[in-house]
Amino acid sequence: MNDASFAPRQSVEQVEEGVDLAPKFDAEGLIPVVTTDASSGEVLMHAYMNAEALAKTIELGEAVYWSRSRKVLWHKGATSGLVQKVRQILIDDDQDAVWLRVDVVGGASCHVGYRSCFYRSIPFGPDRNKSELEFTEGDKVFDPKAVYGDAPNPTRL
Amino acid sequence: MNDASFAPRQSVEQVEEGVDLAPKFDAEGLIPVVTTDASSGEVLMHAYMNAEALAKTIELGEAVYWSRSRKVLWHKGATSGLVQKVRQILIDDDQDAVWLRVDVVGGASCHVGYRSCFYRSIPFGPDRNKSELEFTEGDKVFDPKAVYGDAPNPTRL
Repeated sequence: MNDASFAPRQSVEQVEEGVDLAPKFDAEGLIPVVTTDASSGEVLMHAYMNAEALAKTIELGEAVYWSRSRKVLWHKGATSGLVQKVRQILIDDDQDAVWLRVDVVGGASCHVGYRSCFYRSIPFGPDRNKSELEFTEGDKVFDPKAVYGDAPNPTRL
Repeated sequence: MNDASFAPRQSVEQVEEGVDLAPKFDAEGLIPVVTTDASSGEVLMHAYMNAEALAKTIELGEAVYWSRSRKVLWHKGATSGLVQKVRQILIDDDQDAVWLRVDVVGGASCHVGYRSCFYRSIPFGPDRNKSELEFTEGDKVFDPKAVYGDAPNPTRL
């Protein structure tokens, strides 16, 4: 399966109301992906796929992303063992975003060591400006140094 | 509150392990946002905010996005009445994605008329190439023509 397996985008009706998989990749050839825990519904991460990563995810039934920092196809869990087994793949109305519902082998998805990448909340309300982030997860699930060794941190400023 | 209220991004440690809100906006000044139903956990939509939209969402406690197709600040529900009341705002490890947990007034979030924008699944597995999308939602929650009239459809090919 490759890029050519996806349908060409021909009309708004086809894209929104039809059964053709006609994903829209951005100027860099990427589509954003929301990954949730299939059991808890928790959002685990927000990542990107190129056409090859999407095709491989569909074929394998395991999450394959495009790493923007490392610029490589990224079979999630290849280094950490924290593979994401696909339970369901969904696509949105205009087919420019993917939702992946997964089971995570090992229970964690975040390179910092937490279960979810979204481990901090932003206080809100008229008087909550500039206030500090609040941690929503307690202890880390794993020690990133033990898992990744001295591999470069993917976070970019 | 404006762009200047956000902290400058100074180190990986500050961004990943700290309590400063130091969001990363892309080359177009946008940050992707995943919006889920706070009760069901269902992913409702994938959208974008600029700094002003994020600041307004934090202030108002209602979802304000940046519409890439209309190029305007988009207070969700201003036209349709389907306002998203914020229950929790989270940010990810490298602070380049936002997760919004909301209650939706009126129960629907998708301009096509469905509860969620993700109303179709992609079959997967080695033998599922090129197969058709499957609808996962039944009837539409509202009639988009009745709600939006002849406003232009935001979907772009």
